[in-house]
Amino acid sequence: MSARKEKPAVVLLSGGLDSATCLAIANARHFASHALTIDYGQRHRAELTQAARVAKALGARTHRVVKLDLRAIGGSALTADIDVPKDKLGESGIPITYVPARNTVFLALALGLAEVLEARDLFIGANDVDYSGYPDCRPAFIREFEKLANVATAAGVAGTRFRVHAPLLRLKKSQIIRKGMALGVDYGITHSCYDPDARGRACGHCDSCLLRKRGFEAAKVPDPTVYAK
Amino acid sequence: MSARKEKPAVVLLSGGLDSATCLAIANARHFASHALTIDYGQRHRAELTQAARVAKALGARTHRVVKLDLRAIGGSALTADIDVPKDKLGESGIPITYVPARNTVFLALALGLAEVLEARDLFIGANDVDYSGYPDCRPAFIREFEKLANVATAAGVAGTRFRVHAPLLRLKKSQIIRKGMALGVDYGITHSCYDPDARGRACGHCDSCLLRKRGFEAAKVPDPTVYAK
Repeated sequence: MSARKEKPAVVLLSGGLDSATCLAIANARHFASHALTIDYGQRHRAELTQAARVAKALGARTHRVVKLDLRAIGGSALTADIDVPKDKLGESGIPITYVPARNTVFLALALGLAEVLEARDLFIGANDVDYSGYPDCRPAFIREFEKLANVATAAGVAGTRFRVHAPLLRLKKSQIIRKGMALGVDYGITHSCYDPDARGRACGHCDSCLLRKRGFEAAKVPDPTVYAK
Repeated sequence: MSARKEKPAVVLLSGGLDSATCLAIANARHFASHALTIDYGQRHRAELTQAARVAKALGARTHRVVKLDLRAIGGSALTADIDVPKDKLGESGIPITYVPARNTVFLALALGLAEVLEARDLFIGANDVDYSGYPDCRPAFIREFEKLANVATAAGVAGTRFRVHAPLLRLKKSQIIRKGMALGVDYGITHSCYDPDARGRACGHCDSCLLRKRGFEAAKVPDPTVYAK
């Protein structure tokens, strides 16, 4: 295959399974990936350490961590003093782990970085299949954000058409895992648990752990996660 | 006039002249105003002190400060190591003081707080008249953000129609000042300068100072600003 000129892209990277796969996909699509991690005061701080490992392992061109203290806003089990639910996956309604407007905030920050890097492509590992309780993980949200980006920015005013890539939007967790493994993602260095122990080990019982476990089972792939018990 | 039930609103408050007026307008429209200030690593730290004074003076119900380190993204004279232009007002193009995607990020954070407070009204002091170089101060941006809010949030999915109020959008600086004074705003406690001295005094020469000065002149109102020289 002939060499292609790589365009820059901003890839939101949490350190979890989905965003690691998303970064691998951006690379596979011949983008020069610039990873952006938001340190939003999440309980699961282990994510941040893993994000740096994932960015390095997958060869991101740069990796930035932006600190944003969402605890001043609260309203979620991930940022406020509310217990993370255990073994409750599948209950109806929007989960208490929903962080108000999180993906709107994250994509807005990615958009700011895209302006600085002169990138027009943003990647987000949002997923609408296994866990459809989050309003900002739906296709309608992604499309609407693209429209906003085109009027919100200096580049958009100058004619740039931004594209928000959400390549995992319609995939089951098992499909995400198979895709990532085909692209060489080492899931042993990713972190998904919302409520890890002091040593960073996954609890095995929060929604995120349950989805991840089931994903590895359904993909018929060994689960490399280290659980607390 | 009969008592009305006050609805909550989130008001973005920088501590500057425009956002102080915007808060006074939200109050005058019978909203219970919750002020939200973003500490984004701006050079002009004096803004933050003034935001707290303004929130108190105008009787905001609550005042939250969210820390967000935009310096990790850079790209602006307000957050990166780039000189603030002096005596250059009116040059064409988007000013170097433009912070990439700033109002998108700020409104996204306001939206998150609105979800927590069960508010559907957001106020932003964006202005498109005196200083039209910022893409995210245009009516098209405000309207597009409203659409995004309705698909991005749990409340939107449940049927809430968000409204982004930008009451200063079409006003000249002198009109903003007259409106604010009629509503009792003390502009002596607001801060506009992008590049104040160590004692927080306005430089008198950056774009923001020049606009403010001209506004007071055109409004034929004494300028209460303390300038460094």
